[in-house]
Amino acid sequence: MDIKNKSITSRDEDFAQWYTDVCKKAELMDYSSVKGFIIYRPYGYAIWEQIQNYLDKEFKKTGHENVYMPTVIPESLMQKEKDHVEGFAPECLIADIGGGQPIQDKLIIRPTSECLFTEHYAKIINSYRDLPKLYNQWCSVVRWEKTTRPFLRGAEFLWQEGHTMHATEQEARQETLRMLEIYDKCGKDLLAIPFVKGRKTEKEKFAGALETYSIEALMHDGKALQSGTTHYFGDGFAKAFGVQFLDKDGKIKNPHQTSWGVSTRLLGAIIMVHGDDNGLVLPPFVAPIQIAIVPIKMNEPGVLQKARELQKNLESAGFRVKLDDSDKTPGWKFSEYEMKGVPIRIEVGPKDLAANTCMIAKRNDGTKERYSLDNLEETIGKLFKQIHQEMYNAALNNLLNNIHEGHTLEEVEQIVNKGGYAKMMWCGKQSCEDKIKELTNATARCIPFDQISFQDTCPVCGDKSKYLVLFAKAY
Amino acid sequence: MDIKNKSITSRDEDFAQWYTDVCKKAELMDYSSVKGFIIYRPYGYAIWEQIQNYLDKEFKKTGHENVYMPTVIPESLMQKEKDHVEGFAPECLIADIGGGQPIQDKLIIRPTSECLFTEHYAKIINSYRDLPKLYNQWCSVVRWEKTTRPFLRGAEFLWQEGHTMHATEQEARQETLRMLEIYDKCGKDLLAIPFVKGRKTEKEKFAGALETYSIEALMHDGKALQSGTTHYFGDGFAKAFGVQFLDKDGKIKNPHQTSWGVSTRLLGAIIMVHGDDNGLVLPPFVAPIQIAIVPIKMNEPGVLQKARELQKNLESAGFRVKLDDSDKTPGWKFSEYEMKGVPIRIEVGPKDLAANTCMIAKRNDGTKERYSLDNLEETIGKLFKQIHQEMYNAALNNLLNNIHEGHTLEEVEQIVNKGGYAKMMWCGKQSCEDKIKELTNATARCIPFDQISFQDTCPVCGDKSKYLVLFAKAY
Repeated sequence: MDIKNKSITSRDEDFAQWYTDVCKKAELMDYSSVKGFIIYRPYGYAIWEQIQNYLDKEFKKTGHENVYMPTVIPESLMQKEKDHVEGFAPECLIADIGGGQPIQDKLIIRPTSECLFTEHYAKIINSYRDLPKLYNQWCSVVRWEKTTRPFLRGAEFLWQEGHTMHATEQEARQETLRMLEIYDKCGKDLLAIPFVKGRKTEKEKFAGALETYSIEALMHDGKALQSGTTHYFGDGFAKAFGVQFLDKDGKIKNPHQTSWGVSTRLLGAIIMVHGDDNGLVLPPFVAPIQIAIVPIKMNEPGVLQKARELQKNLESAGFRVKLDDSDKTPGWKFSEYEMKGVPIRIEVGPKDLAANTCMIAKRNDGTKERYSLDNLEETIGKLFKQIHQEMYNAALNNLLNNIHEGHTLEEVEQIVNKGGYAKMMWCGKQSCEDKIKELTNATARCIPFDQISFQDTCPVCGDKSKYLVLFAKAY
Repeated sequence: MDIKNKSITSRDEDFAQWYTDVCKKAELMDYSSVKGFIIYRPYGYAIWEQIQNYLDKEFKKTGHENVYMPTVIPESLMQKEKDHVEGFAPECLIADIGGGQPIQDKLIIRPTSECLFTEHYAKIINSYRDLPKLYNQWCSVVRWEKTTRPFLRGAEFLWQEGHTMHATEQEARQETLRMLEIYDKCGKDLLAIPFVKGRKTEKEKFAGALETYSIEALMHDGKALQSGTTHYFGDGFAKAFGVQFLDKDGKIKNPHQTSWGVSTRLLGAIIMVHGDDNGLVLPPFVAPIQIAIVPIKMNEPGVLQKARELQKNLESAGFRVKLDDSDKTPGWKFSEYEMKGVPIRIEVGPKDLAANTCMIAKRNDGTKERYSLDNLEETIGKLFKQIHQEMYNAALNNLLNNIHEGHTLEEVEQIVNKGGYAKMMWCGKQSCEDKIKELTNATARCIPFDQISFQDTCPVCGDKSKYLVLFAKAY
């Protein structure tokens, strides 16, 4: 791409402004009159629908069932698990007037639904035969955040929340890892985003969880984005809510619980991993419009007819196609579909008619090449696989080039201040974690599953090191 | 079905109790700890997913796009259209505490989203080129109802709400009729439910609409159920919210607006139109489980293997199949899948192995017949079409047998008190409509599109009759 799209700020000039520009100009979202609550516009919502389709199939393949729980949680119910309520209390939106009358037990607009699921499970789980229960919910949640950014941090966002109950600790722990793998696979197959998988530190784990795992992505500006989490709760919620079952051995036990979720944050990840100075760049399999057809010299005989024939054939082959036959100029259309990140643009003009060809422009690297119309479906199928792989590799290179070992506290500081992940051998004490945050504002992103020791002592305190941890500034 | 399922009340004994029993025993829903808010359990939610799949495809085929608007509406915004806010004010759930602080402009948990859509449209519509805008949203809405019943009237329900803007009145009016046709087609193709289509009276129309159209279904107990509505708003909201566009003729105009929706009420319709004393009866194309396979003498050699082979083949053919190989008795399994309304049960036992057959039981009429396993996929494909048609016809007969002409006020009273629709030639005055409601509690369901006059005067006041209206008691 040599021509910068004039209507947006460049990435290097002001990354935050570039991000907001893309969100708005690609028509992914708009602001509403309620502070922090955004409108998911058709193009943004359609990307979310693609993610939903992918994940919903994976969830169902692994035996999960969808349910829908109330949108409100009584304050008294939320208070049953102490750590959990403490974690969420500062962010709650609370309703206390219904039909003009005050409501005694105030209602929290759901920030997450552990309490509702666990209460329901207490009613429907009695025997080991009732386990596992593998439920998932697609919905929105509300968190009263002070500073908000589209898709990254909002007063309301769309997500899925899985909540499961298992007879044994082992099975529940396996579930948290199984779901993390599904999220990771979604990155590889659909979003063209490589994630670092790992466990959260005690400081960073979810309110009420015994362990939290996450997938972490690296944005173009060197900041990390937590893109999905899975939690193992042990039997803490189950005890607090009285969930019990009669096991095979005749004993009454509390089941072991997990929850896991990804949200419309993934749209933020797509934008900031792949986007460029001309706007959004979408990986082909998640793109709501995969192919934009732009007729050139549309009024010359046969051009529009050929464009429509192409559209029909490509749609029949299962591609998502937009033919733009509006009276705008080809140049305007090129910018428009570049801004919207459409992976492939097909130009077809008078010269192509006789030659039985079309011009194909790839959005990810801006290259253009003329192809025969024979076997075009096959050509495009191959191109999509190629584009997906190119985008994944570019993101992977960016990730690998921006993970550096920090042997001293100064090195850790330098790395995270420059942008990217600092690998550090950590003693495991929260005081050392706090110290780094205090100095740099970077946080422990995760204790990655791939643990390779490169140093015996913690560079903060000098004590014996226990874990390899990744620190980074994060959204 | 000759054996009544003992665990539920019979329809004729106590229809309301039968309904609640089916909702609970078929595991469609459960009550939550928040009064009026139900839990949509996996089996109930899966039926809703089938309806969503069907309608979402129809909406997209007709050019509609999905969006997601905030879950809350500022009170000040809701007050912009006077009739609308008056209609909804008594049912609002209101939040006024966010992050521990009072909220100045209180937030209404959305009961419907006309205000949010219209405000957004004011920002994005400028020219005739921006029209039409055809948006739809899948979400839940909250209405603080005093008396609630699962799926029929609840504090929260799931629905879709379409909101569209058009350059001309004619086009907007066409949209309300087009969407009503799609709802009607969903009844015919998917739910096996015949609807009466018509226009609502002034008294019964939606708050803020100029005209409301509805589809009305007749339940087994003779009560009507409004199952979907479409509304024409004129430019009332557009004016109140300042939505304007520059038309082709160079003039500034307000666009014309519609909205339309169906909800999880449709689950109530399915239950009460098709259900029987053994529980739910699902039409095949909306059933989450279309075929239940119950192996007979499961431990005899080859039986379970054959059952699994059947499952695999039928799933490959695209059917939704459940093989129950649990250690429960066949009798228990029969009751279970009858209660859940699974359209076809396949029994396969030792005798079938040699004969290459299986027993197929149809849920809708309780008949059983032995079929060859050769071409079983084809056999079942045909059976599903046949079952769907039988169920539709039964519902249509019930509808047609329960519409009667009321020539006098007494006749109208008798008809609606007995159950079913009273056809009446009406003068058009609300006082006459009120009088019937006062006497019988029946309401004007609609002014049906099929208008055939059978009487010159209104039986209530004796004035000249204008419309054929259907009255009925309704949910």
